[in-house]
Amino acid sequence: MRFRIIKRSRDSWARAAVIETPHGKIRTPAFIPVSTKASVKTLSSEELNEIGAEVLMNNTYHLMLKPGSRTVKKLGGLHRFMHWNKAIITDSGGFQAFSLGYGKETSVKKIYFPDEGNSGRKGSERIAKVNENGVEFRSIYDNGKHLLMPEDSIRIQEELGADIILVLDECTSPLAGYDYTKKSMELTNRWALRCIKAHKSKQALFGIVQGGEYKDLREESARFIASQPFGGYSIGGSLGKSKKDMHRILRWVVPLLDYKKPRHLLGIGAVEDLFETIELGMDLFDCVGPTRIARVGIIYVSPKEGGNRKNKFRYRITRKEFEHDEKPLDPNCKCYACRNYTRAYIRHLFKANEMLAYRLASIHNLHFIVNLVKDIRKAILKGTLKRMKREWMS
Amino acid sequence: MRFRIIKRSRDSWARAAVIETPHGKIRTPAFIPVSTKASVKTLSSEELNEIGAEVLMNNTYHLMLKPGSRTVKKLGGLHRFMHWNKAIITDSGGFQAFSLGYGKETSVKKIYFPDEGNSGRKGSERIAKVNENGVEFRSIYDNGKHLLMPEDSIRIQEELGADIILVLDECTSPLAGYDYTKKSMELTNRWALRCIKAHKSKQALFGIVQGGEYKDLREESARFIASQPFGGYSIGGSLGKSKKDMHRILRWVVPLLDYKKPRHLLGIGAVEDLFETIELGMDLFDCVGPTRIARVGIIYVSPKEGGNRKNKFRYRITRKEFEHDEKPLDPNCKCYACRNYTRAYIRHLFKANEMLAYRLASIHNLHFIVNLVKDIRKAILKGTLKRMKREWMS
Repeated sequence: MRFRIIKRSRDSWARAAVIETPHGKIRTPAFIPVSTKASVKTLSSEELNEIGAEVLMNNTYHLMLKPGSRTVKKLGGLHRFMHWNKAIITDSGGFQAFSLGYGKETSVKKIYFPDEGNSGRKGSERIAKVNENGVEFRSIYDNGKHLLMPEDSIRIQEELGADIILVLDECTSPLAGYDYTKKSMELTNRWALRCIKAHKSKQALFGIVQGGEYKDLREESARFIASQPFGGYSIGGSLGKSKKDMHRILRWVVPLLDYKKPRHLLGIGAVEDLFETIELGMDLFDCVGPTRIARVGIIYVSPKEGGNRKNKFRYRITRKEFEHDEKPLDPNCKCYACRNYTRAYIRHLFKANEMLAYRLASIHNLHFIVNLVKDIRKAILKGTLKRMKREWMS
Repeated sequence: MRFRIIKRSRDSWARAAVIETPHGKIRTPAFIPVSTKASVKTLSSEELNEIGAEVLMNNTYHLMLKPGSRTVKKLGGLHRFMHWNKAIITDSGGFQAFSLGYGKETSVKKIYFPDEGNSGRKGSERIAKVNENGVEFRSIYDNGKHLLMPEDSIRIQEELGADIILVLDECTSPLAGYDYTKKSMELTNRWALRCIKAHKSKQALFGIVQGGEYKDLREESARFIASQPFGGYSIGGSLGKSKKDMHRILRWVVPLLDYKKPRHLLGIGAVEDLFETIELGMDLFDCVGPTRIARVGIIYVSPKEGGNRKNKFRYRITRKEFEHDEKPLDPNCKCYACRNYTRAYIRHLFKANEMLAYRLASIHNLHFIVNLVKDIRKAILKGTLKRMKREWMS
């Protein structure tokens, strides 16, 4: 893997770059559609190509359960298995240590907004527990026990055969206190060393910065990860209790990392997050958001059509007002759904529970976000990012 | 609408013909994918084009509830609404008089196989009742009452704007006795006259032959329908208690119809039914089977790959033996799914409950059946139908 910076912004940490992988170039900043179980939900590879995606992100935990990494290896690796010849990243399973553990117990996400009614109290029994050895998972399919150690995660990711792989980490909760977050970060660092030792393939290995919302922990983590021979960096774990917290955390971390390596902001990718975090030096974003909200009828829309910070550049296509609306989902969009189908029809498909609804909305939302990030990249190259940000965010 | 017969078989009633509609030609025999609620489940119009479909069949009952025929009319009619510029047929709602009525109560289909464990006893409360005026439906969405009279069905179908529309009929159950079937057939005939009277548009109107499994009733119905100024004929209702019964019924009916008009066998279209019923003069077939079985992982396969009468040209892709199978669903198939994806991957998608599974299997099954009927048409034109039938059915 090579990382070439093409242009750095003068007035922010934003940069336009290229990651060269054995499966083609990733022009960064780039949005990564999430193909958890070797499929971006409802979409074909050709559709993802047409959208303009240059990289997908698969999940180690889910694929080790079904179909199993040995099966994928036997079938020629992920690219061949899922009929995708561009780049692939695999997540390590570390996020599931949180989402199926403390996150499941408390129903808290990576950013915890105390004002938004997420009490952090309801939730169901955890099926992931962390100890020194690794993560003890239960299968979401048959409740079977699986111990995932750092060495296992690396071996499984080698068998899966992605271009970029991640170290096993513990993603911490925004509800975790200082002491737990410190211990967890130190554990993640010990696991990082075990991953480096276990890593034999030519796949690029990214380290993961943890440390929650605590400045000294984030700095310690960033220094440690930067000191190791990683191909790039992911920024994981709790990002605090507000968007401002998230930005503050990036301001602590980024200067401590080697700027010649790519930086991946794990699990973030809402429209309103992109400008700020790209200006804070982020190169890669993955997020299930665009497809997840698509499946419940929430549609991305550009500022020309009423998208703004307050409505998060979204509207609900199921609203009555679209019953007779013959416009496309976003008249400024060139995606397959917008070229061919009306709001009225797509609203009908949602109302009638037709699966085509989920597809058309997923195509649109992914096209929207992938190409917004491409446009941001162009703006970085032209030196017009500030203006573009103003047009979108004011 | 024009119907031109290109070639008639010497040794059967099979014929190759062309139906010319305002939205292009339907080369018959033809298989009609079913787009009940204005969508062939999971598929886009472009995929249906690529499959080779020349006509789709929508449903009056479902569309009158959502989005409503006035909404469709306001949006320019079905073709524009659903982004499909080839021919469309709308069913009249008559099938739902059965499937949501007696069929729901008894869980019986149009052919009742006493040996196949379908007891005809279980089932749930009916939500359709027939009286002289029309069909009293409950909505599947909100249980609201809707009376559908023959005049309503015609008006709704005019608003929907299909190329071919059907008279409202009562589809009878294979469990109905002679007396009920006779009364029902006479009611269907009275409704047919009311439909003819209400029909003002230039859409082609097809009559429906009823009469269940009773020779005199089928003959009476066929004579009556043939005496009316219909553009074509649909053969509906109970088709008896075996495939042989179905064939016998067609042998009674077909000679009584005007051979210069197209004949549509309603709701039938399994592979093993096609050869026999095309030889008995059927031109059009619609069936939800290929897509419905696709969504539970049942895949059509050609004789070269083990498909035969006994296995109904099907296999289950979820079987363990396909875990490492890198072949396409059917190596002889040229559909999008078979050109790009392996059995192992599609099996994985089903096991992981990924919606892409339903799409790929639906594309394959529809491609398989639509193109099988196209191949049968070619065989009629070349005079090789008997040989082709032997290759498939022996």
